[in-house]
Amino acid sequence: MPYTIQMFENHPSVRSQPIEHYAACINAMHDCAEACFSCADACLSESDVQMLARCIRLDLDCAEICSTTASILSRPSMAAPEIWAAQIQACVTACRACAEECERHAAQHAHCRICAEACRNCERACNDALRLMRPQ
Amino acid sequence: MPYTIQMFENHPSVRSQPIEHYAACINAMHDCAEACFSCADACLSESDVQMLARCIRLDLDCAEICSTTASILSRPSMAAPEIWAAQIQACVTACRACAEECERHAAQHAHCRICAEACRNCERACNDALRLMRPQ
Amino acid sequence: MPYTIQMFENHPSVRSQPIEHYAACINAMHDCAEACFSCADACLSESDVQMLARCIRLDLDCAEICSTTASILSRPSMAAPEIWAAQIQACVTACRACAEECERHAAQHAHCRICAEACRNCERACNDALRLMRPQ
Amino acid sequence: MPYTIQMFENHPSVRSQPIEHYAACINAMHDCAEACFSCADACLSESDVQMLARCIRLDLDCAEICSTTASILSRPSMAAPEIWAAQIQACVTACRACAEECERHAAQHAHCRICAEACRNCERACNDALRLMRPQ
Repeated sequence: MPYTIQMFENHPSVRSQPIEHYAACINAMHDCAEACFSCADACLSESDVQMLARCIRLDLDCAEICSTTASILSRPSMAAPEIWAAQIQACVTACRACAEECERHAAQHAHCRICAEACRNCERACNDALRLMRPQ
Repeated sequence: MPYTIQMFENHPSVRSQPIEHYAACINAMHDCAEACFSCADACLSESDVQMLARCIRLDLDCAEICSTTASILSRPSMAAPEIWAAQIQACVTACRACAEECERHAAQHAHCRICAEACRNCERACNDALRLMRPQ
Repeated sequence: MPYTIQMFENHPSVRSQPIEHYAACINAMHDCAEACFSCADACLSESDVQMLARCIRLDLDCAEICSTTASILSRPSMAAPEIWAAQIQACVTACRACAEECERHAAQHAHCRICAEACRNCERACNDALRLMRPQ
Repeated sequence: MPYTIQMFENHPSVRSQPIEHYAACINAMHDCAEACFSCADACLSESDVQMLARCIRLDLDCAEICSTTASILSRPSMAAPEIWAAQIQACVTACRACAEECERHAAQHAHCRICAEACRNCERACNDALRLMRPQ
């Protein structure tokens, strides 16, 4: 995303350092939200939709959580680090659960395979961000 | 909210039992999101807005997190209890931080006093919901 | 919702007058979002889920739009009336489409019947709000 | 965003054609939401925050609307074209109002200048998408 780093560099009081890592995390969240919303919609068009009900539900949980976590991290002044940590932790949990479910359907449905990849990528970026926050 | 309980009663596979407690939690989240968004907007109209910057930021964090947590709980099939637990925990953290900040301005600004009340109410409802989930 | 009116009464610069009507509209949006998210989840548990795919999609569209429109209206300073009008119009459109689809399944599924009611109620409240905005 | 096009290509029933244009529109919305949320947070750290109150409000309106519109378009089955049209129209309205306000502060604040650019970019992408929908 072209603006994330630029906006952080021109913010008068950024506390979420190093910005490249947090920006990468925000981007991974948007990508994951996007993939999850689309995967849920694709699942609804499949003939085995009944088998995919849990996948759709986790796609929606994960998409909404990623989207909100990205909004929180878009306030790089980081008003309350404990909110960041708890919300990123919820994001890790959602990404992992959704990835595990999507991986079960990856052989049958390419959209599940791609979505699992987006979830694992976001899970990793969130875990990196959590590690950065710990010494604070 | 008139529909929450009705919808849960007519859902084929509700796992979030007892529904009254989860419905109360959802309602507290919507109330809190509402109060927080309005408090942020009211703060922006105050002459001491610079003193209220952290309050506005926490209002926005809390509003967005409450709103998303309500969406997750509106899927009472509870596809992944660990997502519920982590997201409700993030909601508790946001409500507590926002309440503490709003309480600092409660004497000067009625909207901060009311908002703190909504946050404390939601924090309590979330903690009740977390307790209900533990034995599962 | 207990806080909406109180928050508006304690806001230094409310432009969304009369507040009772806007507060009623916000409440109808939260109720509708709630019903739509739950209806989508209930549909996913039905044996005829394939017949309900469009219903689930419109439930999600309507829930997300109602929730965001409620957030916009929770800033009663109304920074840009044209944004309010366009967003409330999108909300009317979503509520109407979702109600029509849910009404088709109302005889088979109580959750669709209740959800249609919530949508029609929100559609009405939004149309009332749009009428109030016109003379401005 | 790496996944948007891939997901659309692997969706069983995409009706939002041509997908490249809709994918570009989704990406512009995520970029704009990101810039607006960050701009609001940056404004809150400025010494002339009182002058920026309207800018912060429009940033929030625009960010939330862009984010929700991106979610709607992430269901490329396009269950109700009229919802897409109305929501994209609301997005155009929000982007234009936010861009105009940010442009007023562009000389003083680089974050407002960049945010205005993101808004104008999104406004253009939305208008392109609306044009594509018209013949349908």
